[in-house]
Amino acid sequence: MQIVRFKAGDKTRYGALEGATVVEYAGTPFTIFRRGRRRHLLKHVVLLAPVLPSKIVGIGLNYRDRATELRRAIPAEPVMLLKPTTTLIGPDDPIVYPSISARVEHEAELAVVIKRRCRDVPVARAREFILGYTCLNDVTARDLQEKDGRGTRAKAFDTFCPIGPCVTTDIDPSALAIEAYVNGEVRQSSSTKEMVFPIEDLVARVSQVMTLLPGDVITTGTPAGVGPLRPGDRVEVRIESIGILKNPVVKL
Amino acid sequence: MQIVRFKAGDKTRYGALEGATVVEYAGTPFTIFRRGRRRHLLKHVVLLAPVLPSKIVGIGLNYRDRATELRRAIPAEPVMLLKPTTTLIGPDDPIVYPSISARVEHEAELAVVIKRRCRDVPVARAREFILGYTCLNDVTARDLQEKDGRGTRAKAFDTFCPIGPCVTTDIDPSALAIEAYVNGEVRQSSSTKEMVFPIEDLVARVSQVMTLLPGDVITTGTPAGVGPLRPGDRVEVRIESIGILKNPVVKL
Repeated sequence: MQIVRFKAGDKTRYGALEGATVVEYAGTPFTIFRRGRRRHLLKHVVLLAPVLPSKIVGIGLNYRDRATELRRAIPAEPVMLLKPTTTLIGPDDPIVYPSISARVEHEAELAVVIKRRCRDVPVARAREFILGYTCLNDVTARDLQEKDGRGTRAKAFDTFCPIGPCVTTDIDPSALAIEAYVNGEVRQSSSTKEMVFPIEDLVARVSQVMTLLPGDVITTGTPAGVGPLRPGDRVEVRIESIGILKNPVVKL
Repeated sequence: MQIVRFKAGDKTRYGALEGATVVEYAGTPFTIFRRGRRRHLLKHVVLLAPVLPSKIVGIGLNYRDRATELRRAIPAEPVMLLKPTTTLIGPDDPIVYPSISARVEHEAELAVVIKRRCRDVPVARAREFILGYTCLNDVTARDLQEKDGRGTRAKAFDTFCPIGPCVTTDIDPSALAIEAYVNGEVRQSSSTKEMVFPIEDLVARVSQVMTLLPGDVITTGTPAGVGPLRPGDRVEVRIESIGILKNPVVKL
C-alpha cells in the first residue's frame, strides 16, 4: 500500500493513496491501522510529509556512480550524518534558499521508514523493522559543506528535507529507478542497485549505534548528477513504485 | 531557580530544586509554570534529564584551551554537530560502553536550553530565548571519531548524552568554573570564559540555520583534558551555579 498523511479541511489523518483518491485510515501505521470508509479525491486534500520522524539519519557516498563522479573511494563503512527534524517539509512545500549560501543542491534519495523500535538489528531481520520507502530530497548547501569540511550545517537548514509523497510498503527496494528533475529536465538518473551498502545493511549498522524509533528515517545516499537549485526552480525526486516528490525553490 | 524533572512514585513532573528538597510545579517551563504546594525530599525522588529536546546541537572546538591542546586553529565559525535524542540520559543513569569502540571519552560541557521557538535570533536578543543552563557530558567514541574523520557516529550511541541535574535560570554563564571528574579525580578544569564563541553568538549562529524549539539543547563545546572512560568508572561533570552530573559507566 501507499501510506500518506493528509489534511482535509481542518483535520490531519493518515490514509492510503489509491489512484486519484485517498482512503482514510484510523490510527497510525506504527500501531493499529484500520481502513476507514471515507474516501477523498486526491485533488481535494493536501498531502503532508508522510511521517514525522524523531530523527533523520543520512548516509554519505552510498552510490557507486556518485563515488566515481567525485573520484572518491567507496567507504569501508557507512558514513552517518544527522539532519534535524526542523528540515522536514512535505510535497509541494517550498525549499527556502538560505541567505548565507550561494550554492544549494538537490540530492535525490530513497528513504527507509522504520516501523518498530529496534536496536542491534541483524541484517537478516532488517526488513521486519521497515514500514516502507519514500522519496527524499537531501537538500545541501554545497558551498557550506565544502567550507566546513563536513555536511552537518550544510544539510540542516529549515526546509532542506522534503519527503513524500507516500510511504510504499511491500516492495523490493533493491533495483528501483531513482531520478531527479529540475524544471522538467532530468539531472540524476540511476538505480538503487548502485548502492554500496544495501538497505538491510544500513538498518543493521545504524541500529548498532542508535535505537531506531517508529517513523525514524534513514536516507540512503544519492546517485551521480547532483546539481544546483535556484530560486524559482521546481525540483522533483522520482522513484519507481513510490512516486514523484515535487517542491518549488524560493528565496525569502 | 533550578528546574528539575523528577519521578516521585509513578508520576513524572517538573519541579524546583531547593536545597535538599524538590518543590512540585504544574505545567512546563516552556508554557505556564506554577509553583505547587507539595515538596519532596530530594533523596525520595529520581531526577530525570531536566528537558526532552527535539534536537541536540553540539559545537566543536569551542574552548581556546582545547584548541591549544589539540594544536588546532581556532575555528572562524562555530562547527555544528547533531546528537540524536536517543543519546539522552539523566543523572545517575549508566553510560553504556559500545562493543564497537575501544576508546570512549568524557567531554564536560555547558548546555544551553532554549525557552521559546526562534529563528534568526540577533546576538543582542539571544538571552530572551534561553531558559537556562545545565551540565552535559558529550560522550564520544574517540577511536570512531578518528576513523570516520567526523564526529556524528562517534557521538550518537545510546546513553552518550547525560544531562542534568537541573536547568539553572537567571545566571551569567560567561565565567563559570567547569570540571570533569573520573572516580573522584579531576580531569578537566577550566572556565566558560575560555569559550571561543560566546553563548549569545552560538544561539544566533545556530538559529540562522535551524529553527530552535522549546527544550532544544545547544551544547557549547568542551575544554582541555578530555580522556578515557572505562567500564566501572564514575564520571562527573561539575559546573559552578548548576551542580554535579554523575553517571556510572557500564559494559553490557
